[in-house]
Amino acid sequence: MKVAVIGPGSMGLLFGSRLSACADVCLVGRGKEHVRELNENGITVKRGEEEHLYKVRAVTTGEEKEAADLVILFTKAYITRDALAANRGLIGKDTVLLTLQNGAGHEDILREFADEDHILIGTTNQGSYRENTHTIVNSGLGETMIGRVAASDKENSDAAKRTEEIAELFEKAGFPCKVSNNIRFTVWNKLMINASSSVLSGVLAKPQGFVCENANAWAICCDLIREICEAAEGEGCHFDYEEQTERIRKHLEAVPGGYTSIYSDLQNGRKTEADYISGAVVRAARKQGRRAHTHEVILNLVHAMEA
Amino acid sequence: MKVAVIGPGSMGLLFGSRLSACADVCLVGRGKEHVRELNENGITVKRGEEEHLYKVRAVTTGEEKEAADLVILFTKAYITRDALAANRGLIGKDTVLLTLQNGAGHEDILREFADEDHILIGTTNQGSYRENTHTIVNSGLGETMIGRVAASDKENSDAAKRTEEIAELFEKAGFPCKVSNNIRFTVWNKLMINASSSVLSGVLAKPQGFVCENANAWAICCDLIREICEAAEGEGCHFDYEEQTERIRKHLEAVPGGYTSIYSDLQNGRKTEADYISGAVVRAARKQGRRAHTHEVILNLVHAMEA
Repeated sequence: MKVAVIGPGSMGLLFGSRLSACADVCLVGRGKEHVRELNENGITVKRGEEEHLYKVRAVTTGEEKEAADLVILFTKAYITRDALAANRGLIGKDTVLLTLQNGAGHEDILREFADEDHILIGTTNQGSYRENTHTIVNSGLGETMIGRVAASDKENSDAAKRTEEIAELFEKAGFPCKVSNNIRFTVWNKLMINASSSVLSGVLAKPQGFVCENANAWAICCDLIREICEAAEGEGCHFDYEEQTERIRKHLEAVPGGYTSIYSDLQNGRKTEADYISGAVVRAARKQGRRAHTHEVILNLVHAMEA
Repeated sequence: MKVAVIGPGSMGLLFGSRLSACADVCLVGRGKEHVRELNENGITVKRGEEEHLYKVRAVTTGEEKEAADLVILFTKAYITRDALAANRGLIGKDTVLLTLQNGAGHEDILREFADEDHILIGTTNQGSYRENTHTIVNSGLGETMIGRVAASDKENSDAAKRTEEIAELFEKAGFPCKVSNNIRFTVWNKLMINASSSVLSGVLAKPQGFVCENANAWAICCDLIREICEAAEGEGCHFDYEEQTERIRKHLEAVPGGYTSIYSDLQNGRKTEADYISGAVVRAARKQGRRAHTHEVILNLVHAMEA
């Protein structure tokens, strides 16, 4: 299978390296120097005591002209459109686009480049951080879930078969992977934490545990969770509010000192992915004719803090 | 007239000092050492090149047992109830309670200590900051407005007469003062800025100008203004939303580098008066059977940031 991985950040390098061992992979990045280093040094993946070097092929944006069977998006959410537009050569009529990016609603952009039968969305609980430009630590080993936006359990179509093949490729490369017939639910389930406590801890510049320890922070978090449940319901995904608050409280109690990516983006003056996290809730609510008031305030605060 | 000024902060010292020159005034404070210093040194008031020393009489909380004709509250809003309870000796059946504190809704607490005919609320555009425990700079010279919560322009009651006498005393002491027959409007008018841009600039830890310069901050500010207009309407005070956004934008453009008291309270780890600013809007909306969503989020954020 010919695979292109767009976005050579820590997650892109993790998937790009291991997939290179069992498919024809090219990594696509914007930085010429980074691409040169990847081609020269390969990617070193550390996990516990183990360390493995993968030879990879990297190209700069727009360089690869031949269509891939699978394009995996690992860019920051807010550059997805530009990244796909700049790499149109990779997308043929049979190319499957897969996003494993944070947040929700990426399929709205992917639809501008492929039909619904060639779009997969998903989540991964794999974790990775960079030690340097070509060395990463595989810090999380969780499951990857992929699925078609329009999937139902009855079908046995070409699109369904392609999805299974991609899941098998992931498994072969060392990423436990399941195909979900209700992938939207999986995506909203992940968003439930990211768009509530994770964003809030960033806005408050506090570790995650603070969100459930402080009564006022927890009150905001509960309003955020309630609005996510409402928006998800409107998207056909039912979540029980009480169950979710309980789940998130337990999650926060388990990692009280943890910091979220929005926290570190804001602390380091970087643009955050809030438009695809809080923003996904705001847009879903508006589409349903309501307003997610709390998410609107939080999203505006994040953007004001980015400035 | 026998006057007690509770709360010897910068504003209490300003009013307490000048009123001492034309009435029998006692300043009431919690700190024994501060009270001793005031009795020993008097209060020095600076304004431009001028400097004036006022001899004053100060007492500690609960020490004065004789009822006053007028009790003026200048404590932080959140200790009003405790301050009045600890100084019950000052409040007789003819004592008028006057609050010139920041925010709105103080009358709800004052009603626990006096009947409606003996409660005055108001605002002042006088400004003051402390150089040391007994020296202040009179930095703002604006008007003071006072009025009865239940006033109407037709009446000519004892309560109305008492209010006029108090305004005359203020004038005599050098504080331009008007009696308003619609003092709630005046209070909401001041709250319009304090509960929108002032609180928001504190939450964002930015100078006031940022609120109208940054599109996302301004979007939140406009939501705050809209909710204040709705809450005020429910309290019988009509404000035009477009006029108010315009007024506040101009105000911010005039003082772009200015910092608000909530900003400095948060920066210095002090408890803020947000419960009587944002909180007044939240309570008014709830009383009217609605929710002021944006103010709820902001109020919870302020309290979480105080922690």
